[in-house]
Amino acid sequence: MSEKLTVKELIAKAEKPKAIAMKYHPFYRGKLEVGIKTPITSFQDFSVWYTPGVAEPCMDIYRDKNKVYEHTNKWNFVAIVTDGTRVLGLGNIGPEAAMPVMEGKALLFKYLGGVDAFPICLGTKDPEEIINVVKWISPTFGGINLEDFEKPKCYYILDRLRKELDVPVWHDDQQGTALVTLAGLINALKVVNKKMDEVSIAMVGAGAANINVAKYFAKAGAKLGNMIMVDSRGTLHQGREDLQEGAARYDPKKWEMCQKTNSAGKTGGIAEAMKGADVCIALSQSGPGVIKKEWVAAMADDSIVFACANPVPEIWPWEAKEAGARITATGRSDFMNQVNNSLGFPAVFRGALDVSAETITDEMCIVAAYAIAEYAEREGINEDYIIPTMEATDMYIEEAVLVGMKAIEQGIARKKLSRDAIKASAEAIIRRSKATTDLLMKNQIIPPFP
Amino acid sequence: MSEKLTVKELIAKAEKPKAIAMKYHPFYRGKLEVGIKTPITSFQDFSVWYTPGVAEPCMDIYRDKNKVYEHTNKWNFVAIVTDGTRVLGLGNIGPEAAMPVMEGKALLFKYLGGVDAFPICLGTKDPEEIINVVKWISPTFGGINLEDFEKPKCYYILDRLRKELDVPVWHDDQQGTALVTLAGLINALKVVNKKMDEVSIAMVGAGAANINVAKYFAKAGAKLGNMIMVDSRGTLHQGREDLQEGAARYDPKKWEMCQKTNSAGKTGGIAEAMKGADVCIALSQSGPGVIKKEWVAAMADDSIVFACANPVPEIWPWEAKEAGARITATGRSDFMNQVNNSLGFPAVFRGALDVSAETITDEMCIVAAYAIAEYAEREGINEDYIIPTMEATDMYIEEAVLVGMKAIEQGIARKKLSRDAIKASAEAIIRRSKATTDLLMKNQIIPPFP
Repeated sequence: MSEKLTVKELIAKAEKPKAIAMKYHPFYRGKLEVGIKTPITSFQDFSVWYTPGVAEPCMDIYRDKNKVYEHTNKWNFVAIVTDGTRVLGLGNIGPEAAMPVMEGKALLFKYLGGVDAFPICLGTKDPEEIINVVKWISPTFGGINLEDFEKPKCYYILDRLRKELDVPVWHDDQQGTALVTLAGLINALKVVNKKMDEVSIAMVGAGAANINVAKYFAKAGAKLGNMIMVDSRGTLHQGREDLQEGAARYDPKKWEMCQKTNSAGKTGGIAEAMKGADVCIALSQSGPGVIKKEWVAAMADDSIVFACANPVPEIWPWEAKEAGARITATGRSDFMNQVNNSLGFPAVFRGALDVSAETITDEMCIVAAYAIAEYAEREGINEDYIIPTMEATDMYIEEAVLVGMKAIEQGIARKKLSRDAIKASAEAIIRRSKATTDLLMKNQIIPPFP
Repeated sequence: MSEKLTVKELIAKAEKPKAIAMKYHPFYRGKLEVGIKTPITSFQDFSVWYTPGVAEPCMDIYRDKNKVYEHTNKWNFVAIVTDGTRVLGLGNIGPEAAMPVMEGKALLFKYLGGVDAFPICLGTKDPEEIINVVKWISPTFGGINLEDFEKPKCYYILDRLRKELDVPVWHDDQQGTALVTLAGLINALKVVNKKMDEVSIAMVGAGAANINVAKYFAKAGAKLGNMIMVDSRGTLHQGREDLQEGAARYDPKKWEMCQKTNSAGKTGGIAEAMKGADVCIALSQSGPGVIKKEWVAAMADDSIVFACANPVPEIWPWEAKEAGARITATGRSDFMNQVNNSLGFPAVFRGALDVSAETITDEMCIVAAYAIAEYAEREGINEDYIIPTMEATDMYIEEAVLVGMKAIEQGIARKKLSRDAIKASAEAIIRRSKATTDLLMKNQIIPPFP
């Protein structure tokens, strides 16, 4: 646990990278480039890479479309698609202003997972047009990462594209957050010696993230009936007519949660949902003060509090501890136990792409969560270490292997590789990505910070 | 001039790269990757490149959209867009089968011009849908390269997008071929001591390429009335009612040429067009035998024959020489005087992108043609050397400078740089691109040929 800081100091700490970002971004003028990965030893090589030689791989693909996975980089290209309507906590700032985030996401994809992700920032906000453009550009890509689309269209776009495309389509706010949160909970429960199928869980926030968290927790054994979700108007329960079909605030995902969670039918707000709960998962709005100390104090013994809003958690971790929480986690890198999406998506895609999977199933995400949890467990878990950091390169490789194996088991992998082959592939690709960056920095092709 | 080879030997020579391509393509599994161009010295750097730091450049762009050219790589990203309907000489093979060509084109863009070109292969062939998808993805890109679209929609798509987008839109078969052909003709005329505004020109083929060639020749001083174009049904002239509006074969570009070229109103075919001509520019169908020796023999003294069909020229260069041509050129790298598009587009885009131009005008292409011609002239032109090869790195830099300066002069450059600044930028970017490939090969991050 970091030393206690005032709100002002902590906000200032979160502000510091912004000032640096304003200095570095115009210096580098972008975080990505297009790289050449074949030798060019003389200009004659272009007669192989381009006309006339290239005609032969073209015709090979023309005869068998699946050969595009062998002759081109489609197998490792992922489009990071956004319309800029819900960028970070900044809201609807548009596709151009979303570019720095998408380039940053691509940087994480490449550095951590060796995935060739490329930003596609869209000049339309219409869901049908978005679905069309993604379908039309899909021949280039082995996967699609939807990013920062506003609710509720993010659900609709994801569902439609998952049905209509034969490559993985992913929305990190849904699947990514959920799998990493699950990894954290698995280990937190081990530390406090409670069982997934017995705990009661208060979920603060009922957005895309928390709804998928609930779903993944259930797939890992937790009971939906033991979860209580809270939105801005109170707990979700069967009496929330404002959310049902036909109502102005109709939200099919929330309404489904009204039916399946909260079997006790608790009404009220966050306080009532947290009373007696073993676990609190908050993915709502920047704090502090969204969750009060007395509410944590009213939880069960050995309580677990994930307060993951950014930039400021719903309750400071030391406040939660003072109120009796045994384990706390946040979304910030400057506290212990960071629930960090970057532990998930680069490796999940690595595994899915290495076997040219047709989709990414929930089961593939769940095994990724267990891989993260088990990696930490082997290192030795405790209150202050339930989840690894981005430095755990081997963890990414282990995740990728389990994800790839699960895809093969589920019959959705175009390539049936052995465990060893997936491991060799994932490891070589991830290590190569880091080695490339190091080499380019060392030779000042990537110039040092100004 | 290469030694004489039989047709069989020459076809075999053109086949050899195909066999190598089938070996190398699956070994490298793609020619492109996404590269990281910022330092990553510790995982804390992600707080600058991604959240929370990245929020500040985002908001800066939100306040002033033009800042996207400073904070991101948009300024250097070019989409290579195709629907796969007219790939090389292979025809309508579809977007997946087009991928190896688009990756190859991106390789040329990057290696020769330092341009971050990225393939976008489209799963739609409808012109309106193609126009929409390009507009929708345009926030990411500083330029659009249309590639291998079939006629006549390629004209329509280019015209619409050039009007509706505020970034350069380019169709290499039109602008690129024309500018490099012009460069060749400028020097060929110097060698034979004839004047652009006096020569008569037979143009074999009336496709997108040759129609633009005619236009550029005219901009460089040639008289349209002195040109005679020939399509599969004979010369274009005012009596070609099969091409006029309402006719089944209506083609607005060809019909315009019927009005403007061939002021003598010559009828007949290639033979009649070439009789007495100073220059023959053939961009039609793979030969040999499309142009006969006796037709070359009937041209004016000191005749110039560009036979640029691939893989086999319309007439072998030695046959043309035997028939009396003083200068011959082809599209092949194994003969002297290769009219090679790769001398044009990488540098034109380099110049346009370095000043963040809103479009690429014909005037920018014409100065690029003169830059190519002048580079060769300084090296010493003669019958066998009218145009440089891809190894002339300095030529690309000179082209880029003139293109950038012309954009500024025409008031379409977002960045008003000095000549020295454009030169420094173009030179640094192009040399960095080659140095990167060399470094990655030397360190076997790009593995050697298998």
